[in-house]
Amino acid sequence: MTLLQTLSINGKRLNQSLDDLAQIGQLDNGGICRLAFSSQDLQGRELVRRWMLEAGLEVRFDAAGNMIGRRQGKTHGPALATGSHIDTVPCGGKFDGTLGVLAGLEIARTLQENNVELDHPYEVIVFADEEDTMIGSRAMAGTASLDAADYHRKDGRPIDQCVNQAGGNWAQLFKARRTRQDICAFIELHVEQGGVLEMAQTQIGVVQGVVGLQRYQIHITGRPNHAGTTPMDQRQDALVAAAQVVLAVNRLATNPPGARVATVGALQVWPNAANIVPGKVQASLDVRDLSQVVIDTLVSDLRAELDAIARATHTTIEVVPQLNVAPSPAADHIQEIVAEASRSLGLSHRPMPSRAGHDALEMGRFTDMGMIFVPSEGGFSHSEVEYTTPEECTQGANVLLETLLRLDRYYR
Amino acid sequence: MTLLQTLSINGKRLNQSLDDLAQIGQLDNGGICRLAFSSQDLQGRELVRRWMLEAGLEVRFDAAGNMIGRRQGKTHGPALATGSHIDTVPCGGKFDGTLGVLAGLEIARTLQENNVELDHPYEVIVFADEEDTMIGSRAMAGTASLDAADYHRKDGRPIDQCVNQAGGNWAQLFKARRTRQDICAFIELHVEQGGVLEMAQTQIGVVQGVVGLQRYQIHITGRPNHAGTTPMDQRQDALVAAAQVVLAVNRLATNPPGARVATVGALQVWPNAANIVPGKVQASLDVRDLSQVVIDTLVSDLRAELDAIARATHTTIEVVPQLNVAPSPAADHIQEIVAEASRSLGLSHRPMPSRAGHDALEMGRFTDMGMIFVPSEGGFSHSEVEYTTPEECTQGANVLLETLLRLDRYYR
Repeated sequence: MTLLQTLSINGKRLNQSLDDLAQIGQLDNGGICRLAFSSQDLQGRELVRRWMLEAGLEVRFDAAGNMIGRRQGKTHGPALATGSHIDTVPCGGKFDGTLGVLAGLEIARTLQENNVELDHPYEVIVFADEEDTMIGSRAMAGTASLDAADYHRKDGRPIDQCVNQAGGNWAQLFKARRTRQDICAFIELHVEQGGVLEMAQTQIGVVQGVVGLQRYQIHITGRPNHAGTTPMDQRQDALVAAAQVVLAVNRLATNPPGARVATVGALQVWPNAANIVPGKVQASLDVRDLSQVVIDTLVSDLRAELDAIARATHTTIEVVPQLNVAPSPAADHIQEIVAEASRSLGLSHRPMPSRAGHDALEMGRFTDMGMIFVPSEGGFSHSEVEYTTPEECTQGANVLLETLLRLDRYYR
Repeated sequence: MTLLQTLSINGKRLNQSLDDLAQIGQLDNGGICRLAFSSQDLQGRELVRRWMLEAGLEVRFDAAGNMIGRRQGKTHGPALATGSHIDTVPCGGKFDGTLGVLAGLEIARTLQENNVELDHPYEVIVFADEEDTMIGSRAMAGTASLDAADYHRKDGRPIDQCVNQAGGNWAQLFKARRTRQDICAFIELHVEQGGVLEMAQTQIGVVQGVVGLQRYQIHITGRPNHAGTTPMDQRQDALVAAAQVVLAVNRLATNPPGARVATVGALQVWPNAANIVPGKVQASLDVRDLSQVVIDTLVSDLRAELDAIARATHTTIEVVPQLNVAPSPAADHIQEIVAEASRSLGLSHRPMPSRAGHDALEMGRFTDMGMIFVPSEGGFSHSEVEYTTPEECTQGANVLLETLLRLDRYYR
């Protein structure tokens, strides 16, 4: 116990690795462009692979192109796993994903240089293509389609070619699937990508789970008409109906207060001319919460309101489902252990949902999952201004280490 | 008096002329494409010019390219004028504009074959480019800019070249200006382009004036944010603000009931993505009424509401004026005479505003103006389905004739 309690990572080395990896794909504005499967992504993976080998990990690529560094444990049972991704959005920051990967690596280095042998095997996973298809974690969870034609990557490149180029083997994609017998727990350290921790002046977010997401297209059909010659009481104005829909969505998400969010982010009007009463509107709906019941209730309440709006505005409103991702709750005991680990390190912490998707969401589909958040300055992410202090990165990595050590005993 | 009371136009001939002119620019779907200054437009004008000459009119082109057919009167005082336009939208019908021109022509034929000499000179005007720049009537009213660079025709052709090609003389545009000493009254017969007469089962619309129009761009600025990670109470959602604006506009136009109309016809959202809280919205506002006071009050009430919406949604709202056309009221005595003329012909009639712009709007800027509407089936216009029955066309032309005969006495 004495040894474990005093074990801590080398923060200077962790932050140096963050800086070194950020050299690959760095843009003139300081942002990072390391699109999944690009030469920058592959170059970044090669650097991480070398570091993994230096840290004594065995490195392999699974069929989905995930890069997995593994340290054997005293037993041959299921592994404790951590990791994240190193691919970025077109202009991302140097923390989103990479912190989780490099903290996992730093823990491997720390275990190695302190000659600590865990009971469980330890894995650091670099997931493939988190920012677009999430093929890596989805293949590992068995939720990925095996048909390449089902994927439409933003850069237009076929997914099978991409995966094969990254060391995977699309034809054998099913082999990437893991189970609870392979991995007994997965913990992901990540920057918050929001402003909750900073505003609450809290050092560690104990993630309660990744929120579920339902997305819809709402089609509103009225009748286009001359804005000058059509009296108000003879209109079937699709935009007036859409305005009521936008406000209904906002009201259902806001009252009574809660953690759920609902957004109409995209809206198009036809024919979209100043002198024509709008005949058609298409709007997006995005609803997220940790609780499936909360999501379902909001959508069902909204459907009732849409019917009333359609009647009142003489329009028709059609709701077309686009996306339905169930919430992925963090395991209760992992939340408790992350909180205890934070406390033991003297770090303030608070429970919070993850409102953005992460590889942990998919990992939670088949095994015990937890996430640790550290603050994002100003709440900014997916941008060159994304920033987490070196101290906060170190604190997060130490909470991850302490959590893994405690889980190593928990699953004994 | 006996002669005048029994004078009526030849409906068959009028409708034959409508059919003949509709051959020029006829589309496969039955619509008409006779864009202003196109070869079809010039061909149509040539046909009308020949008909005018056959009807004993002297024909001249003014500097703006208006074609003016004139019959002398017993006196050399100001003229009684009528007319409209024969240019169309890209797919228009065969009545919009042409009915007013050909009814004026048919009245000239009727006067000629009955050897009726009016006290006043009589003019039939074919205005240039009603469907785009309204250069013809605006030049005649003296409200047209003399700088060709101020015009941006939809087809991209320079206005000065167009006008010169149509028999005008751009360099002398100012000479097209007329005054009350030239024209003591202008009456335009036109199809309604709306469904009011048809729904009220009324044969003749006694136009109270052409409504005024104010148009604005409304710029709403919030803050774009991640739709997943941004709690509802931390949002500055520009689309939620815009929805409140759309409903405020609709409410101010609808309650209390009245004849005013207000429309948000165009709306754009930035960045317009399902997963991003809208950061910016741009919306159009179009307000029309016969009364300047009604328009000004609505806009002023709306500005107060916009301030409240901006405060409540933590957005900023800016209102940028785009267009301001004052209402053009019809002369009271002309409205009375049109009503009397209808009554004397046994035709049902009702007062109504013109909510679309017409050449009469500009003519009303300098002389006594009136308009006569006949029904549009289904309220459709600017489309191949535009339709007014031959009987209704004949009725409208007879009301126009009777109105001119009464005005000839009125101005004696």
